[in-house]
Amino acid sequence: MTLSASHPLMDGRTADSPLITAYRGGTPSRRPVWFMRQAGRSLPEYRKLREGTAMLDSCLDPAMASEITLQPVRRHDVDAGIFFSDIVIPLKLAGVDVDIVPGVGPVLGTPVRTAADVAALPVLTDAALEPIREAVRLTVAELGKTPLIGFAGAPFTLAAYMVEGKPSRDHLGPRTMMHADPDAWQALTSWAADASGMFLRAQLEAGASAGQLFDSWAGSLGLDDYIRHVAPASARALGHVRDLQAPLVHFGTGTSELLVAMRDVGVDVVGVDYRLPLDEANRRLGGSTPLQGNIDPALLNAPWPVLEAHVRDVLAAGAGAPGHVVNLGHGVPPDTDPDVLTRVVKLIHSVEP
Amino acid sequence: MTLSASHPLMDGRTADSPLITAYRGGTPSRRPVWFMRQAGRSLPEYRKLREGTAMLDSCLDPAMASEITLQPVRRHDVDAGIFFSDIVIPLKLAGVDVDIVPGVGPVLGTPVRTAADVAALPVLTDAALEPIREAVRLTVAELGKTPLIGFAGAPFTLAAYMVEGKPSRDHLGPRTMMHADPDAWQALTSWAADASGMFLRAQLEAGASAGQLFDSWAGSLGLDDYIRHVAPASARALGHVRDLQAPLVHFGTGTSELLVAMRDVGVDVVGVDYRLPLDEANRRLGGSTPLQGNIDPALLNAPWPVLEAHVRDVLAAGAGAPGHVVNLGHGVPPDTDPDVLTRVVKLIHSVEP
Repeated sequence: MTLSASHPLMDGRTADSPLITAYRGGTPSRRPVWFMRQAGRSLPEYRKLREGTAMLDSCLDPAMASEITLQPVRRHDVDAGIFFSDIVIPLKLAGVDVDIVPGVGPVLGTPVRTAADVAALPVLTDAALEPIREAVRLTVAELGKTPLIGFAGAPFTLAAYMVEGKPSRDHLGPRTMMHADPDAWQALTSWAADASGMFLRAQLEAGASAGQLFDSWAGSLGLDDYIRHVAPASARALGHVRDLQAPLVHFGTGTSELLVAMRDVGVDVVGVDYRLPLDEANRRLGGSTPLQGNIDPALLNAPWPVLEAHVRDVLAAGAGAPGHVVNLGHGVPPDTDPDVLTRVVKLIHSVEP
Repeated sequence: MTLSASHPLMDGRTADSPLITAYRGGTPSRRPVWFMRQAGRSLPEYRKLREGTAMLDSCLDPAMASEITLQPVRRHDVDAGIFFSDIVIPLKLAGVDVDIVPGVGPVLGTPVRTAADVAALPVLTDAALEPIREAVRLTVAELGKTPLIGFAGAPFTLAAYMVEGKPSRDHLGPRTMMHADPDAWQALTSWAADASGMFLRAQLEAGASAGQLFDSWAGSLGLDDYIRHVAPASARALGHVRDLQAPLVHFGTGTSELLVAMRDVGVDVVGVDYRLPLDEANRRLGGSTPLQGNIDPALLNAPWPVLEAHVRDVLAAGAGAPGHVVNLGHGVPPDTDPDVLTRVVKLIHSVEP
């Protein structure tokens, strides 16, 4: 199956955009840039709109999710919208008791720790994803030639929240489970893979032109554990959308040792965090994979000459890759001055692609 | 200067112990093992003794700190005691308003963010370290031929707490400061280096036979930032003790990209976290550096056959290094069954060194 003829990627709107061109290893008209968490707390218009609405409620209100997605595109002239949602939304829509607690993160009513817990998980239905499709449709109708990127959490990161029941620093629970009860672990990550895969497919079918899998916590794993206990589930998640032939990106933090394995689960583009220079990432990936990244978010608060020099370093280091989409090497910190982001976009667009 | 003639490392008590022999690249009589955080919450006798005493108060009570240090040595037959203290103790003894908040971590009354803040920091005096020396003296009098390891926090990790005022996930504050105000950053990390260096020297002079520098958060840094903005201060901290000629160890988590740079600040032994197999760490270090590590703490809760196989893998991977001291690849999780640790020690000691 492929996307419908009226999809932005098929009807001429986004296929030749700088973002999609770079994701596909072509030569874009300008160096494309977007920012992880560009839709969010750094924007006063976001904080105003979200007042009085809980995080997951805002994700499930199609008009609000769409407006939040559009805000940074209007403001910064970035080369993509990133769909405003949360990686636990597919859990919520499946009927799992999960909420985002401000200042904490995702919290589950009941952690999932045994084979019986996994077997008792509700199943996500395609019908439940309708608010997501609706929000995407509203968004792409406004975006015109600017592509929308859909996203989903990778199975390990989702499973980490499900096993711990809340955010944790070391992810000991899931890392124990993969060794202590590999069958239950495999069942849990398969469940998460299907939920995330369906969530991503809903976004792509409804109009997103690319998809990004976030494995926020993969950096807590050694390479052997990643390959044996995590990569198969990530490949399964991506198996839900591969036939759509939209470019797929894979990103995690602290994953410099995992870049090749994360590429090889079946993506077109690898996102690199701020720790590893892009020229070194390109070398490790054999020079054949477009890259996304990796301005250090810590530099957004530095004086402009320091930040400008850093951005130019990132552009130079990324120039050798077969494609380069500029991004941060982690999400926008909430206290970032949004005018700095706009200025960074202008700088990037002023440089030869 | 060297250690006094009555020091355990000089008077024949610990110089030929398995730990010191392995740290120096010799062949020990058995594979030495100790556990980071072996003195702590996993032990019921620790929890009982600590009842009603705040963390930093327990560190500054010489009899209590000594008893806590000895508890795991008695229980597990480990090859070293690790001095019970905290990396913020030198701040506390200097007069900085710092406390350990249960469930949170180190919290400062006033974060240190500007050159003026750094200039206003109180100076640690050698006299203030007397409770530390006293606790070490009490401990080594009991330990006999078992060496005591002293420790200190590395300047980056200390500065990260000082800038943020509390634990943080991304360490954006210190990582911004090193670029935005490198002079203030250099002054702050020099202050922290001197405080940590004096703290470590007090422990070594009073009877510790080795020293470990903990850079818990160094893994949040790329290699360039580490070399330019952190390594000089870590070398300065170690400069306080290098003349004592006790073996020095350097450890951080998520530091697989930094191992060579962390060795080159001037240590004898590199601690490796659980993510990187020891044979690969040994390869990266050129085969010339004794290693410490790296049982995955997540495996301590797995069924014994799974844990045993993992421990044997670690022993095999470490056998090729010029010296190998077994440890965890991170601290003992508080919910660890202490009998499992004892069993792991027995297993390690049963294997040919």
